Amino acid sequence: MQIALDAMGGDHGPQELIAGAILAADQFDTDICLVGDEQLLKKHLESISPQQNSVSRLKIVHAATSVGMDENPVDAIRKKKDSSIMVAFDLVKNGEASAVVSAGNSGATLAAGVRKLGRLKNVARPGLASIFPTMKGPVVVMDVGANVECRPVHLYQFAVMASAFSKLYDVDRPRVGLLTIGEESGKGNSLVKETYELLEQSDLNFIGNVEGRDVFQGDVDVIVCDGFVGNICLKISEGLAEALMKMLKDEIVKSNFAKLGYLLAKPAFDKFRKRVDYAEYGGAPLLGIKGTGIICHGKSNAQAIKNAISVAIEMEKLGINDFISRTLKRGISNRAEAI
Amino acid sequence: MQIALDAMGGDHGPQELIAGAILAADQFDTDICLVGDEQLLKKHLESISPQQNSVSRLKIVHAATSVGMDENPVDAIRKKKDSSIMVAFDLVKNGEASAVVSAGNSGATLAAGVRKLGRLKNVARPGLASIFPTMKGPVVVMDVGANVECRPVHLYQFAVMASAFSKLYDVDRPRVGLLTIGEESGKGNSLVKETYELLEQSDLNFIGNVEGRDVFQGDVDVIVCDGFVGNICLKISEGLAEALMKMLKDEIVKSNFAKLGYLLAKPAFDKFRKRVDYAEYGGAPLLGIKGTGIICHGKSNAQAIKNAISVAIEMEKLGINDFISRTLKRGISNRAEAI
Repeated sequence: MQIALDAMGGDHGPQELIAGAILAADQFDTDICLVGDEQLLKKHLESISPQQNSVSRLKIVHAATSVGMDENPVDAIRKKKDSSIMVAFDLVKNGEASAVVSAGNSGATLAAGVRKLGRLKNVARPGLASIFPTMKGPVVVMDVGANVECRPVHLYQFAVMASAFSKLYDVDRPRVGLLTIGEESGKGNSLVKETYELLEQSDLNFIGNVEGRDVFQGDVDVIVCDGFVGNICLKISEGLAEALMKMLKDEIVKSNFAKLGYLLAKPAFDKFRKRVDYAEYGGAPLLGIKGTGIICHGKSNAQAIKNAISVAIEMEKLGINDFISRTLKRGISNRAEAI
Repeated sequence: MQIALDAMGGDHGPQELIAGAILAADQFDTDICLVGDEQLLKKHLESISPQQNSVSRLKIVHAATSVGMDENPVDAIRKKKDSSIMVAFDLVKNGEASAVVSAGNSGATLAAGVRKLGRLKNVARPGLASIFPTMKGPVVVMDVGANVECRPVHLYQFAVMASAFSKLYDVDRPRVGLLTIGEESGKGNSLVKETYELLEQSDLNFIGNVEGRDVFQGDVDVIVCDGFVGNICLKISEGLAEALMKMLKDEIVKSNFAKLGYLLAKPAFDKFRKRVDYAEYGGAPLLGIKGTGIICHGKSNAQAIKNAISVAIEMEKLGINDFISRTLKRGISNRAEAI
């Protein structure tokens, strides 16, 4: 198996990405193509001790340009056909790699993946899933930003795709919830009400509506919503977690007793951080394309990149895409298309 | 000034609500009508020491029934015309009270307020605002659940109403942000894009789009969104804050060192909790009705009730409703109505 890593994306630069690639090559027995500026990447690779055997499993594929974090995604992939993210998806298209992992401009990764690989059979709209940590296991939320305006059939298909993806967490009959603002079936906007009916008729393990407060309880494996709502949920959760930790720290540093207390409790804090750290969850899978694409947080460290590569490998091994196509073929999608 | 308190609502029962009323009567020199079952409330009042002078400022107004927390709001207020929440709003309608405070069924409070008092002049749709604590000051988010499907003019009016309300926090030219999924003006769904234009043309201090991650930064005073998105944001934030604290506690109790550390840091934890506690922010104002209604969390303790009463008093004193009507009259609402 070979994974294409966009070695030019992310906030920390190629060094951190390459470190992640080496961790992954070591641990998962996989080859990795580093896609980006050949001169630059060569220099980084040469600085790594050749004692690390797995360096030999890394290969550079040149790309003349790259997409900046703040560039308009659609413009960027139209103009920069030789950018690292486009070249990376080309490798998958040509059968030279099985998946792309990128911590670069997420809109550009999304657009490049859909443009280069196309939609999976029976999928109306590819989307982006995200794995949220909860009090129990992880929950897969989809869509988190690829599709701003959706119809009920899209949400139904997100439910199928996210359920398939949750195989990675050994969930057998994933419980699917529909994100809305009341528990009863009649609650929500018209999109939610119509989607409720579709999900109820489907073969999915649909448990009904879930509210915002249920997201982190861990009593549901898959949550579906449109990409507008999902992206706001993702960002508000990241922002709140950061703000809470900052505010707690502000109070702690005000007193020496509290600082001492914090030091004693630090291992607990560290375990807690690990439990809620996005880096542990390996990025957001782009589901519904003919291939595999994993979009990582711009802030991803080597550990996060390694985990994202692991997710890409698992998706391939478990045949998530085949499963999605098959389920949508025999599912209620034809009926749903009419809505 | 007289405030009507729905003494039958809330998870903790009348005792806690009455305790809040006494705190408020003491501190703000106000009279309070306790609305609910006369026999029951009398018994509670008699059990309170008459040394507390402010007990004399509490008066009971009888209501034969009350709306349960799980009842369907619209059905409940149609059938239970003699419920405590309906009687409370009657007091405002008849000029016997200036505001209603309720920790009961929030949907019923909302519906009763709108039904009994009607819309304020020039307001298309009343809505519910919520005050979120942030790293800096509070931010007023509107709508958080009253209006599930909105047009641009509604969001524009929410911006006007929430800006008026933020006078309570001594904010002079409140910075207004539009909640969406990208910073640039073209980002978001069609509702957001059209609302952007309206806000840009208005006299409001519109600072542009804000994303989920900006909500808790404190760099904006007012955030507008439709009630579907706003309610999910409110609930997901409450749920995440609770889950994070629970997970941190789980890790701390696993080790004696960490427990000791926690005890040393406890004053810092307590200050942090106070900083993010909804009880400090005095409930969610129902804006755009002919009168004042404050919806409190079901879990509200006496402190939260006292603070909600304080918000009701301040809204009256500052003439928030007059300000809203005047602003909407001279504003762009006529042009906006066309959208």
